[in-house]
Amino acid sequence: MPPPILTLTTDFGLEDHFVGTMKGVILGICPEARIVDISHGVRPFEIAEGAYLIAQAWRYFPPRTVHVVVVDPGVGTSRRPILVEAGGHYFIAPDNGVLSMVYLREPSKVRLISNQGLFRQPVSRTFHGRDIFAPVAAHLAEGISPVTVGDPIDNYLKPDFTKPHRAGKRTWIGQILKIDHFGNIITNFHYDDYGDLALRNFQMQLGPVNVTALATNYAERPAGELFVILGSSGYYEVSLSQGSAAAKIKCDPGAAIELLVG
Amino acid sequence: MPPPILTLTTDFGLEDHFVGTMKGVILGICPEARIVDISHGVRPFEIAEGAYLIAQAWRYFPPRTVHVVVVDPGVGTSRRPILVEAGGHYFIAPDNGVLSMVYLREPSKVRLISNQGLFRQPVSRTFHGRDIFAPVAAHLAEGISPVTVGDPIDNYLKPDFTKPHRAGKRTWIGQILKIDHFGNIITNFHYDDYGDLALRNFQMQLGPVNVTALATNYAERPAGELFVILGSSGYYEVSLSQGSAAAKIKCDPGAAIELLVG
Amino acid sequence: MPPPILTLTTDFGLEDHFVGTMKGVILGICPEARIVDISHGVRPFEIAEGAYLIAQAWRYFPPRTVHVVVVDPGVGTSRRPILVEAGGHYFIAPDNGVLSMVYLREPSKVRLISNQGLFRQPVSRTFHGRDIFAPVAAHLAEGISPVTVGDPIDNYLKPDFTKPHRAGKRTWIGQILKIDHFGNIITNFHYDDYGDLALRNFQMQLGPVNVTALATNYAERPAGELFVILGSSGYYEVSLSQGSAAAKIKCDPGAAIELLVG
Repeated sequence: MPPPILTLTTDFGLEDHFVGTMKGVILGICPEARIVDISHGVRPFEIAEGAYLIAQAWRYFPPRTVHVVVVDPGVGTSRRPILVEAGGHYFIAPDNGVLSMVYLREPSKVRLISNQGLFRQPVSRTFHGRDIFAPVAAHLAEGISPVTVGDPIDNYLKPDFTKPHRAGKRTWIGQILKIDHFGNIITNFHYDDYGDLALRNFQMQLGPVNVTALATNYAERPAGELFVILGSSGYYEVSLSQGSAAAKIKCDPGAAIELLVG
Repeated sequence: MPPPILTLTTDFGLEDHFVGTMKGVILGICPEARIVDISHGVRPFEIAEGAYLIAQAWRYFPPRTVHVVVVDPGVGTSRRPILVEAGGHYFIAPDNGVLSMVYLREPSKVRLISNQGLFRQPVSRTFHGRDIFAPVAAHLAEGISPVTVGDPIDNYLKPDFTKPHRAGKRTWIGQILKIDHFGNIITNFHYDDYGDLALRNFQMQLGPVNVTALATNYAERPAGELFVILGSSGYYEVSLSQGSAAAKIKCDPGAAIELLVG
Repeated sequence: MPPPILTLTTDFGLEDHFVGTMKGVILGICPEARIVDISHGVRPFEIAEGAYLIAQAWRYFPPRTVHVVVVDPGVGTSRRPILVEAGGHYFIAPDNGVLSMVYLREPSKVRLISNQGLFRQPVSRTFHGRDIFAPVAAHLAEGISPVTVGDPIDNYLKPDFTKPHRAGKRTWIGQILKIDHFGNIITNFHYDDYGDLALRNFQMQLGPVNVTALATNYAERPAGELFVILGSSGYYEVSLSQGSAAAKIKCDPGAAIELLVG
């Protein structure tokens, strides 16, 4: 048996003790756990960004990995904690849509986390990452059955940021999911839905900027030229050779993008 | 026997090779060690911030964890390295007060680290994290007795940033211990000393700003309103719904806060 | 047998899923691997910075450690992946000079990574860290022979940023390798080549600024005074007591430094 793996994705940043504290709780329950950080750099409370990151990362981990995602503006309110089983992996998060890019793309079972015997007591009002999400994840990694965690539910959140909507015969309105470290602008236009843009006429419009070039690697186009590229995520990105596309266009996550396809 | 755990808290940042190098030294001595980062984002040389972070995190780790804390403006001078035993945990740091929020709150034994046979040789003048703190911690994690490290001392530093002081019959002057990633302002007013502020009249004064509202979760108050909240740390914090209290008030760690209680 | 160790050094930053994804791939192939981050804060595409960081860190790890270095502006072009064997360690990176401060200082064998059976399929055009470097490294950590990876080559890149050049009888022109977290300016003047500057007259010139003081620890000189100090890396640094030398001088990595020695 290989050691159990847990991943962490949060908007906690790395300056504080929050992430380390969650790891302490996990190791106290599951001493053999291998804990991997996906990112703690989700912008505070940006659920779509967290949703994008975990949806990109999870497939590259072995089956039975437990993924903990805490982007949780509603901590302390009545929003519920959930456990998602999908693709042979486990996902633990608040029920606010942060796991929607997993359960809306994969056959999934969603459970309400209700077994308070798995929580760290007393449960604080402000840090459920430490008191609920980390200990439940560690118990799962230790081998308890998902059935022990809580019953299946159907009325979990299904937010609409996961897919573009149609605005005309040839026009779709999508949005920016994330600006990555290199300034690449990641859209929610996915290869599975829009196919190979190299085979079609297209233009991508971000505010006043119109991008029509397509590249197959970041170094292929002349410096300073904006182009569209199929990212390693399966989503199309707007990029700039030797520079930051986001800095050039001055755009932010959440902004609309229009795709016109021939 | 679960694998030994070491934690690291420093002001080294993550851009350089410093933290990775310490981990290499640790794994060379104690190959089974599980190493957890608490934070490397302490502002350079800010001893009170490092003291706050390790004091918040350590309790959530299993007994026998070895905590290494390197915020060390005096590296290369005559300041001494110390080992603290408290609560069944070990703490290793320079004797500059960075462990004071542990040993001033917990029954502790403090030792001078004097056994140079445990150091990495030659000891550099500028990187004791690598040459002294990491190897001594790794030897402890491997199982050597604290007695081997050095003799107990009493004259370690007891700085005054750990507690507010009284300024009047109903008035206390505290300070900002830390601004967290979300812009929450963490004060040094602790629940153990001031009780439940919901049961008393109070006002908290930061420069010209006066805060009198109290909340029990971050989402409870209207957007844009400052309030006091009991943080998961046990310290009272000044927070803002859906925003950064520190950005609104424009204050920095170390600044004075006045608490008036009825 | 202690568990195998892999280190990661990249310009990927920590906000995205890139680093976590590489770790997932590694753990899928080599479940016992201990993965240590050296840095993911190399400035995008700055090969000399990556070269400096791995050259500083590797010696502090146990023999047989596998070091993965991905600073890769040419990803998707014809630049080649290489495996370097040096000092009993393995190094995996693109052939763009990012390992040059290892193989130009140590007796080394350099191999072209050509065995596509070790890659993750399909290989994306934009993320060789995930599809080539991580899986090859994990297979090495699992114990395959370097011979399996590919044949030795001689025509790998030998860039010139690793050493200063002579500009006069007593004058050398070097450059800034890195600005560290504390604002120390790390030069490419190495103790092995220039000896103990305390025994010689010297001046170090950065643009209009001339530094002639030498210190043996960071706390020794008065606040605000620039001085030269031998860093823990073996390179001379320009530093400032209680402040950032780089912020005071306003200089960037890559800038020229003149050293005049008596």
